[in-house]
Amino acid sequence: MNSPLPPLAVSLGDPAGIGPEVVAKCWDSRHALGLPPFVAVGDPRSLSEIWDGPIAIVTDPREVAPAFDQGLPLLAVAAAGASVAGQPTTAGAHCSLDSLELAVGLARSGSCAAVVTGPVAKHQLYAIGFTHPGQTEFVAERCGVSPGNVAMMLAGPTLRTVPVTTHVALRDVPDMLSPALIEARARATLRGLQRQFGIEEPRLAVAGLNPHAGENGALGREEIELIAPAIETLRAEGWLVEGPLPADTMFHASARARYDAALCMYHDQALIPLKALHFEEGVNLTLGLPIVRTAPDHGTAFDIAGEDRADPRAMAAAIRMAASCARYRALNG
Amino acid sequence: MNSPLPPLAVSLGDPAGIGPEVVAKCWDSRHALGLPPFVAVGDPRSLSEIWDGPIAIVTDPREVAPAFDQGLPLLAVAAAGASVAGQPTTAGAHCSLDSLELAVGLARSGSCAAVVTGPVAKHQLYAIGFTHPGQTEFVAERCGVSPGNVAMMLAGPTLRTVPVTTHVALRDVPDMLSPALIEARARATLRGLQRQFGIEEPRLAVAGLNPHAGENGALGREEIELIAPAIETLRAEGWLVEGPLPADTMFHASARARYDAALCMYHDQALIPLKALHFEEGVNLTLGLPIVRTAPDHGTAFDIAGEDRADPRAMAAAIRMAASCARYRALNG
Repeated sequence: MNSPLPPLAVSLGDPAGIGPEVVAKCWDSRHALGLPPFVAVGDPRSLSEIWDGPIAIVTDPREVAPAFDQGLPLLAVAAAGASVAGQPTTAGAHCSLDSLELAVGLARSGSCAAVVTGPVAKHQLYAIGFTHPGQTEFVAERCGVSPGNVAMMLAGPTLRTVPVTTHVALRDVPDMLSPALIEARARATLRGLQRQFGIEEPRLAVAGLNPHAGENGALGREEIELIAPAIETLRAEGWLVEGPLPADTMFHASARARYDAALCMYHDQALIPLKALHFEEGVNLTLGLPIVRTAPDHGTAFDIAGEDRADPRAMAAAIRMAASCARYRALNG
Repeated sequence: MNSPLPPLAVSLGDPAGIGPEVVAKCWDSRHALGLPPFVAVGDPRSLSEIWDGPIAIVTDPREVAPAFDQGLPLLAVAAAGASVAGQPTTAGAHCSLDSLELAVGLARSGSCAAVVTGPVAKHQLYAIGFTHPGQTEFVAERCGVSPGNVAMMLAGPTLRTVPVTTHVALRDVPDMLSPALIEARARATLRGLQRQFGIEEPRLAVAGLNPHAGENGALGREEIELIAPAIETLRAEGWLVEGPLPADTMFHASARARYDAALCMYHDQALIPLKALHFEEGVNLTLGLPIVRTAPDHGTAFDIAGEDRADPRAMAAAIRMAASCARYRALNG
C-alpha cells in the first residue's frame, strides 16, 4: 500500500477557541512533527487574526498535496461577523458546525482520508439548536451509525481507554450498564483495533465498576451480574478479553503491556489514567464509524485563546493518528 | 531537632505473605535505600524460611539501634504451627494480629517512633473474629480515634491522594457523601500535611464526583449541594482549598504541582492516578492518629510469596516516609 493517501480534513472548531491556533502551529511544525498533508476547514479570519503564516485557499482536496509546502491549505467556511479569540458567538457556532459538516462529508466521500475535529463550544451549539451531546454523536448520525454502536477511545502513546458510559452523573452509571452495552462497546473497540491499528488479535482488558472489582460481590454485584457475563459472551465469540479487573491496578506500565485497550465503565475511570499519563498528547477517536475520526482531547480553552499559549501537541497527535488509522483502513478494506 | 529517633516498628503482616520477604530485603539494602533503624515484629520462622540473612532477636526497642548492622532486629511473635509461604492459616492470622497490636503499642508508648504495617490477609482475620474493615480502622480504635476522623492517604513521589469514601460499592458512594464527612477528611488531611510533612500552609485540591465536576449541575448535583459547601466551610476556617475540580484534569504533572494533596470522593478516583503514576512505591498513611502509621500500598501477594520475586520498594518507601513523618512530628510536637 504505497499509493499516497488523500489529505486529511481538519475542522478548526470554534473560531474563537484555540482550534485555529493549534492547527496553524501544526502546519508551522509539519516537518518536525512528521505530519502528512492536511486541509483546514473553517473561517479564514480566525486564522489570519492570530497567525502570520501563509494560507493557501483551496476549493478541492486534490489541490492540497501540491500546495502543502506553500501555505496552510484551507477550505474556507466564512463566519458571519468578526471573530475575536476568546469571545465565542452564535455566528461562530454556526461556522464551527458548517465546518464540521463539510469535513465529515469530505471523509465520507473519500476525497479526504479522515476527519480530525477541532474543539467546539457545546453551549453555543446548543443555543443554535444542536441536539447531539457532542461532535461524536453528530458524526455518528451523519455516518448513519447509532451512537450505541460507536465507542469513544482515548489514546496516548502507552495507553488506550474506552468508556462504556460517558457524560452522565456517576450516580446513574450502575443502572446504565448492561451486558448488551458493554458488549457493543467492546466489539466496536476490538474491531477498531483490528481495522485502524492493524492489531490482528487485539487484547481487551475490562475494568470492574467497584473497588477491587467488587471483591467477589462484597463491594458490589455489577461485576458478577453484568460485566463477567458480557466478557463470557465476547470470549465465546473468539475475542481475547480479560476481566473484570480492579481498576486501580490496571494502569501501571507492566499492567498496560498486557492489553491493547482498556474498557472502562465510566468517564473518569477511562480519563483519569489517560490524562495522568498522557495529558499533552491525548487523542480522542471514534470507533465503529465507516470513516476515521480523531480529535485532540482538549476543549476550546477560551481563557487562553489568542495569546499564543496553546500547546499543539494533542492536535499533532490527532492528525498523526488519523493518518495512521487511515493507512491501516486502506490496507484492511 | 538532632536527637536520634527511636527505631520504627515494622509488623511483618501475614507470615505466609510477602511481608517478611520485603522487610528482609529492606534490611539487606538498608544502606542503599537510606533506611533508618527499624525493628521487625512477627514470626521468626516466617523470616528464616525464606531468607538466609542474620536475625538479631531483641526484647526491647533500645537494643535495636546498636544491633541494626549485625542483623535484622526482630521482636518475636511466634505463630503456632509451621508457616509456609503462600499458604495462609488461621494461626498465621492470629500471629499477624498480635504483631500489629504489639507494633502499635510500641508506637503508642513512644518506644518506637512510628509503626509500619505489613500486609495482612483480611479474610483470615475475619475468620478469627476481627471485626474491623482493615488495619487502618483497627489502629484508629487502638489509638482511641473514630474512623470517621482519620484519613487514608496514598502517597507517591509526586502525588498524594485521600479518598473520602473507601471500600464501598460505587453505587453507594453518592449517598455516603456529606459536607461533614468531606470536611472531616479534609481537616485530617490538612493537619496531617502540617504535622507529618512540615507543610505550613498546605494546599488541598478537592475532586468533583461527576464527569467534568458535574458541569454546573448538568451531570450531577453533588458538587453544588455537598462538595462546594464543604469547601466554603474549610475556606472560612482559613484553609487553602480549591475545587470541586474535574477529576480527569487534576493529575497531570503541571496540575499536581498546584496542590499538596488531592481529596477524592471514592476509592478508585484516588487510587487509579496514584497507582498509574507510582505503582511500585505507593505508601498508605493513616492521618488523624496520635501516632505515625504507614504501610506499603500492596497486599499479601500469596501467589508469589516464597519465590523471592517480591519488590521491596513500596515497603522501603513506607519505612522512609514513616521516619520522615516521625521527624516532622517530633519537631512540631
